[in-house]
Amino acid sequence: MDASGRTVVIREVGLRDGLQSIAKTLATGRKLEWIRGARDAGLREIEVGSFVPPKLLPQLADTAEVVAGATAVDGLTVSVLVPNPKGAERAIASGAHSMLVPLSASRLHSLANLRKAPDEVVREIATIRAMRDAAGSACELEVGISTAFGCTMQGRVAPDEVLRLVRAVLDAGVDRVGLADTVGYADPRAVRELFARAFDVAGARLACGHFHDTRGLGLANVYAAWQAGVRRFDASLAGIGGCPYAPGASGNVATEDVAYLFASMGVATGVDLDALLALRAKVAQWLDGEPLHGAVWRAGLPKTMREAV
Amino acid sequence: MDASGRTVVIREVGLRDGLQSIAKTLATGRKLEWIRGARDAGLREIEVGSFVPPKLLPQLADTAEVVAGATAVDGLTVSVLVPNPKGAERAIASGAHSMLVPLSASRLHSLANLRKAPDEVVREIATIRAMRDAAGSACELEVGISTAFGCTMQGRVAPDEVLRLVRAVLDAGVDRVGLADTVGYADPRAVRELFARAFDVAGARLACGHFHDTRGLGLANVYAAWQAGVRRFDASLAGIGGCPYAPGASGNVATEDVAYLFASMGVATGVDLDALLALRAKVAQWLDGEPLHGAVWRAGLPKTMREAV
Repeated sequence: MDASGRTVVIREVGLRDGLQSIAKTLATGRKLEWIRGARDAGLREIEVGSFVPPKLLPQLADTAEVVAGATAVDGLTVSVLVPNPKGAERAIASGAHSMLVPLSASRLHSLANLRKAPDEVVREIATIRAMRDAAGSACELEVGISTAFGCTMQGRVAPDEVLRLVRAVLDAGVDRVGLADTVGYADPRAVRELFARAFDVAGARLACGHFHDTRGLGLANVYAAWQAGVRRFDASLAGIGGCPYAPGASGNVATEDVAYLFASMGVATGVDLDALLALRAKVAQWLDGEPLHGAVWRAGLPKTMREAV
Repeated sequence: MDASGRTVVIREVGLRDGLQSIAKTLATGRKLEWIRGARDAGLREIEVGSFVPPKLLPQLADTAEVVAGATAVDGLTVSVLVPNPKGAERAIASGAHSMLVPLSASRLHSLANLRKAPDEVVREIATIRAMRDAAGSACELEVGISTAFGCTMQGRVAPDEVLRLVRAVLDAGVDRVGLADTVGYADPRAVRELFARAFDVAGARLACGHFHDTRGLGLANVYAAWQAGVRRFDASLAGIGGCPYAPGASGNVATEDVAYLFASMGVATGVDLDALLALRAKVAQWLDGEPLHGAVWRAGLPKTMREAV
């Protein structure tokens, strides 16, 4: 982590969090074209799919193939989502560099999403850690604490419960943990307060902020998290995505807008904005008819940024 | 000003900055219905029009009538934009409580917009102050420094030049001054830095932040300005607006989203969000076919906010 805040990492999650909420299935070849384009635009971490039963998310049924293609691309950290030990087994076998397990801090959301209470998921995470070690795998284990700022089903989620779960997953042996505003309930003050408390618990292992722009506060929340010390953010090209189990939730923060936010503040992301906007245009064509989001693609980069370059 | 930041004022500028950029002319009766609706939703400051030549902005030709109607509404501070002493004369005669003179920190923008260099505008502002005093009027004189964060024509605008103009208009006798990101070039870091320096110059007379959401950073910039100590913000219902002389500029921050941002952080604005969203729906109907913006109207308020109430 860069304590000065002069560099941040953007993890592209459009191929997972984005595509899972879109009816259209993108062909494997196009997913790989997207992944190569993202790498060429300077992104270095990509979540490429999810090892859930193909019946649940047919859009992501080719995840093993996509991982194989993505790990062949130089200079990329390839991650996948896994909901349970069975998914983790497939992730480890796939050769993904990292696996992310979602753990909902909302009991109701957890039951609806995974049919398990949060503490059952924590136990499975410990199992996954043991499986990974037994397999001699270097696959990094990360947990994303979802609904960390509230839940459309349960309403308020107590910060103390979020922090308890952060501690619990660290005890279960995860390498990294992040906080996710799955349904767009966070605000900048809540973000600063909760991340500050979570850093006290997790230190540098608190390593991701995942925000949705459902109510317009996505980038303000990213900024507030950056102020709190977060140096790695999830984002989705064209802001696609949401949570199929959280009604009303839609739109991850757009990768191109997050990259623009940091570029405008002089914070390095490694992203070439022109290349990323060109990729956005291509993906938007593939997803023609689907709801896309984001702002900077419409107005273009400011003249001042061109001068700075 | 509330130094604690627990209360802020939102000044509705949709009737001026919004309507001037929309081809459709709203009938005077509807403008007054909008104004009463805004008051009923808890807004207390409204910019209702502009004393520019009606040929330039026929949409605002009824400004004197609108001021007359608006000042009859209890509990409202009614402001108008005036580009020059002739406009100020009409504003003073109209009985408006406050007049706002735009002063572009970009020389090119100033020449294009007002056909005058910034320092000529400063001299006119001194004239306006003298006129106001000679008339025995209590009409407050405020200056909005536009293109304070950059300009589509000129590119970079030097912060030192912005601060020089802040000093100059204070010397010219204005009551209040604000900084405006007319074309959506600002970022949270620039906002914090420039407002901090401007507070050093102007103290409590620095009393407004005006942000556009052109590139998605509008609310992040509002938040950054609030962190810097700004307690009064311009915003436009449904995010309508822009600057006819600044190509590519579009969309003030949406009043309903700014109100939601502060409500979510526990900062009081006096706004009843349900009433404001109902008003937005009504105005959106009137402006059917025009480009509208904003986020919270689409997803609705979070369950957590309902619980808090």
